[in-house]
Amino acid sequence: MDLPGLIVAPLTPFTADLEVDERALRRQIDYVVGDCRATMVVAAGVETQEYTYLSLDQRKALIRRTIELVDGRVPVMVGVSHPSFRTAIELAHDAERLGAAAVQLLAPLRPFAGPPTQADLVGYFEAVSKETALPITLYLNPGPGADVSIADTIALARLPRVQFIKESSRDLARVSRLIVEIDRAGHARYFTTMQMLLITLQLGGSGATMPPPAAEIARHIIDAVTAKDYERAAELQLQFALFPGKWMHRGLAPVMKAAMNLIGVPAGEPYPPYQALSGDELAGLAAVLKSSALAGRFAATAAA
Amino acid sequence: MDLPGLIVAPLTPFTADLEVDERALRRQIDYVVGDCRATMVVAAGVETQEYTYLSLDQRKALIRRTIELVDGRVPVMVGVSHPSFRTAIELAHDAERLGAAAVQLLAPLRPFAGPPTQADLVGYFEAVSKETALPITLYLNPGPGADVSIADTIALARLPRVQFIKESSRDLARVSRLIVEIDRAGHARYFTTMQMLLITLQLGGSGATMPPPAAEIARHIIDAVTAKDYERAAELQLQFALFPGKWMHRGLAPVMKAAMNLIGVPAGEPYPPYQALSGDELAGLAAVLKSSALAGRFAATAAA
Amino acid sequence: MDLPGLIVAPLTPFTADLEVDERALRRQIDYVVGDCRATMVVAAGVETQEYTYLSLDQRKALIRRTIELVDGRVPVMVGVSHPSFRTAIELAHDAERLGAAAVQLLAPLRPFAGPPTQADLVGYFEAVSKETALPITLYLNPGPGADVSIADTIALARLPRVQFIKESSRDLARVSRLIVEIDRAGHARYFTTMQMLLITLQLGGSGATMPPPAAEIARHIIDAVTAKDYERAAELQLQFALFPGKWMHRGLAPVMKAAMNLIGVPAGEPYPPYQALSGDELAGLAAVLKSSALAGRFAATAAA
Amino acid sequence: MDLPGLIVAPLTPFTADLEVDERALRRQIDYVVGDCRATMVVAAGVETQEYTYLSLDQRKALIRRTIELVDGRVPVMVGVSHPSFRTAIELAHDAERLGAAAVQLLAPLRPFAGPPTQADLVGYFEAVSKETALPITLYLNPGPGADVSIADTIALARLPRVQFIKESSRDLARVSRLIVEIDRAGHARYFTTMQMLLITLQLGGSGATMPPPAAEIARHIIDAVTAKDYERAAELQLQFALFPGKWMHRGLAPVMKAAMNLIGVPAGEPYPPYQALSGDELAGLAAVLKSSALAGRFAATAAA
Repeated sequence: MDLPGLIVAPLTPFTADLEVDERALRRQIDYVVGDCRATMVVAAGVETQEYTYLSLDQRKALIRRTIELVDGRVPVMVGVSHPSFRTAIELAHDAERLGAAAVQLLAPLRPFAGPPTQADLVGYFEAVSKETALPITLYLNPGPGADVSIADTIALARLPRVQFIKESSRDLARVSRLIVEIDRAGHARYFTTMQMLLITLQLGGSGATMPPPAAEIARHIIDAVTAKDYERAAELQLQFALFPGKWMHRGLAPVMKAAMNLIGVPAGEPYPPYQALSGDELAGLAAVLKSSALAGRFAATAAA
Repeated sequence: MDLPGLIVAPLTPFTADLEVDERALRRQIDYVVGDCRATMVVAAGVETQEYTYLSLDQRKALIRRTIELVDGRVPVMVGVSHPSFRTAIELAHDAERLGAAAVQLLAPLRPFAGPPTQADLVGYFEAVSKETALPITLYLNPGPGADVSIADTIALARLPRVQFIKESSRDLARVSRLIVEIDRAGHARYFTTMQMLLITLQLGGSGATMPPPAAEIARHIIDAVTAKDYERAAELQLQFALFPGKWMHRGLAPVMKAAMNLIGVPAGEPYPPYQALSGDELAGLAAVLKSSALAGRFAATAAA
Repeated sequence: MDLPGLIVAPLTPFTADLEVDERALRRQIDYVVGDCRATMVVAAGVETQEYTYLSLDQRKALIRRTIELVDGRVPVMVGVSHPSFRTAIELAHDAERLGAAAVQLLAPLRPFAGPPTQADLVGYFEAVSKETALPITLYLNPGPGADVSIADTIALARLPRVQFIKESSRDLARVSRLIVEIDRAGHARYFTTMQMLLITLQLGGSGATMPPPAAEIARHIIDAVTAKDYERAAELQLQFALFPGKWMHRGLAPVMKAAMNLIGVPAGEPYPPYQALSGDELAGLAAVLKSSALAGRFAATAAA
Repeated sequence: MDLPGLIVAPLTPFTADLEVDERALRRQIDYVVGDCRATMVVAAGVETQEYTYLSLDQRKALIRRTIELVDGRVPVMVGVSHPSFRTAIELAHDAERLGAAAVQLLAPLRPFAGPPTQADLVGYFEAVSKETALPITLYLNPGPGADVSIADTIALARLPRVQFIKESSRDLARVSRLIVEIDRAGHARYFTTMQMLLITLQLGGSGATMPPPAAEIARHIIDAVTAKDYERAAELQLQFALFPGKWMHRGLAPVMKAAMNLIGVPAGEPYPPYQALSGDELAGLAAVLKSSALAGRFAATAAA
């Protein structure tokens, strides 16, 4: 993967019957690879991809199909998160067979009350590490996953197989410290999220993971930083001030799906019971996106 | 189900190969029904039952086997929690076919950041309600599930199919208010947990849900309250002051499994990576249990 | 102090000019001592007493006036909480001179980010302990004060001068464990709050601290428990299910002041910017109180 | 005040007798004005200044002395935070008389449980606004102060007298949104803190508030940004990754006092019970500072 890394997690489009809509997925992956210039694609790895609704067989099918549709254009990282390390290993073995470049594994909640200890977390990651040759991304997402302390994050980053970290927090005191103590210290590559992208790159972090179409804006930020045009980068970064924050009461997946539908790369509706944005919300979102780096997509859509 | 209700959730014993140990399960269910005198048994319903590690087929097998082993002695409530309402419905249909008396459904986390709204929660429970004739237990367990506000809990309790509530919080300001606004108001039966049992019954709540062997102590509390021997009830309730709290850094399932092993009803070890109690911890736990209502079990075990 | 203890914290009535209204205070203290039969009165000790708005001189005057108005009928405990241990000591010396029976000291927030360590907390309480002969109540109120862990609470309770604990949490798992590890272990007397009163007494805790008129209901609960009439006690305890919880979005002081005004023992309005209950809220509160142990006060007020 | 703003809050040096050490204060203010080139100095405004330990008279004396020692070289902003709006107004009147340029006011906790409502917060700020002609800084510091939502922050920023905001959070999703909706929308100037400085400036925020000697590093960051040398700015910003985070278990005031003592501008020890850094901690801190923009101070100190 080229650095700075733009790891993109395609949204999962569903048909009216709540099956994965393969046609929409194909169109989206072309957008992610061709237009966002993802340096890596994630298959069923982050919660925004709504993979937790799928049966294990549906999830495996989504992973396989994602890899086929990316078709070697960029490396693919496969989400293998599961409360059972055994199922995570099973998914990792699948990923190896399918030619994945890495696996992504959520630091798990302890199901029965209380936070996991460092020994619990290390034990879980070691159990998976032993059974796969692929590099592992430690995925930190408090809520669906555990809230991992700075000390425990560093302990996990020191495991040889853990070569990437995807951090969902927007706490810059935490993230700047971990970039130094993990990424710059050589333990693992540190990836954050859209609101954190510019400062992550400036401090020496490795990039960010996010869904489209945020990823298209992120691509422009990365290009500006690579060109050392920091003022342009800041102007672009500012586009993440209102989008998606202003609509986050709906959740990240519904906002990103709405944005994709608006720019003409249909991603369907949220899996029930979560609802699509209302007409007023869509109008507000469209207004914000039309003054962003995505503006050109609207013209193209209107013309089409 | 007779009231006050003692709803018991058997622990899931695993073999060394991490399969469900049916022999230990049978022994445990006899203890739960015969010695704890459960008024209802839960199959794969609460997180302490470690069902999240199982594949869907293993989970269905555990449910079926639990119902077979209870063998009609008491009603069985089947856990159908799943991020997808479709899978919850599939499990509910299974439960109906197997003769279950009710289903239990966790108020779900929104997978992609932020708390679910009341509309999200009501939508999810209504989707399942429409497809099953069985009464539903609303299961509240912040962490694995959503942290549902008082107002949203009341809204869910008003759904006709929601006839029971299982609340995991130990917040007595919240619980006493909800007992009045839900149970005494006729919307649903309110069940709490071990530390809350006596005060729940005194305030007019309907009982509690818990794993064994806590359930055996709870049986004595319920008997004492039924006999209006409140001083005896308080003395017994006090046994939940140190057990399981003092070992909760290990998590509830490991503590309860350790206690079962100590009293001679083997329940196996925690599913990895979670670890069994250390020797010192076991000794401390044994000392506490030997001065509890479970003391007699130790003599029986020693004699055997 | 007789046990079970009913420690009552009079509300601070303010005139239109925001001075302490001495006439209303006198009337209230007579109610607290005569009708609620407080076993101890707190002067400027808990946040509900709105003492933080006062200058140090005003606060000292309120303490002195409270002691004069109680006039030896029951012991008085003086609040000495202050970020500076020096000011706490100064207030404790005042309390000694005025004949107080004890002082109450909030476990303080660390002003500059992060929770205090056990060493910080013990250092602070030891600094005050060294300079006063009076017994100290450790006051636990996360928010205005620190959120003290179970282990740190036990460490503080072991200090010889710390003879009482006032716990504001409604977490019964925490409280039942601390009653055993602190009160029944002989380290300090454990006092809780209104929603926790009955179960606290049943488990062997020493009583509760609260403002009027909740204290009048609490008096009846204590009398019922003393008479071993646990069913009556539970019926009374249930009166704390809606009151004050249903109006707590207004805060505890405004709700209690409203209730006092309704029962004919005027306590004035909340200190600005906090607002009095609206007309609709007052009507709802009156309806609940009229079906409580305070019902008789309404008749008396109407007749007056 | 010139923008970007570097608002510096001198630490409060105490003598062994816990009085304000005027000589050390003078030396420090010269450092703050001369070396850090503060664009504004805060007198007794932020919690790190340990002003909450002082009596009101001591606090007024500290404010007066700070203004005298700054001696017109830069504007001074006076902290007027107090639970009572009356005392805040009294302090604001003092500030006017002393020639202050602005006042700073903490969004207060509701003393008696539960978060303040938007009406509570607006009422409090309006009460102070009515009585002073000085611009007000809304100070957001959850813990000692309220945790103010995005919507409530915007409502407060729209008050005409509220012209500055000092935000203590390191949540970049929140801060980037508020920079757009408040600072760029023209409602108030947005100031953050050390870890957030570079990205704040890049997104169009107005600067940051902090104590020395962090302020000296911040001065270099601001100079680099002003010179459009963003790579140098990022390199300097990185110096806040470990300092002060790695020692924050001690709290911000003890870490900053230790750093000041190390660079030869003595700031005394933390007010008890909080303790100074241990020998090992000091050695670690010195090593980090010697590779920072403060390195030159060590040479100067050694030479002196």
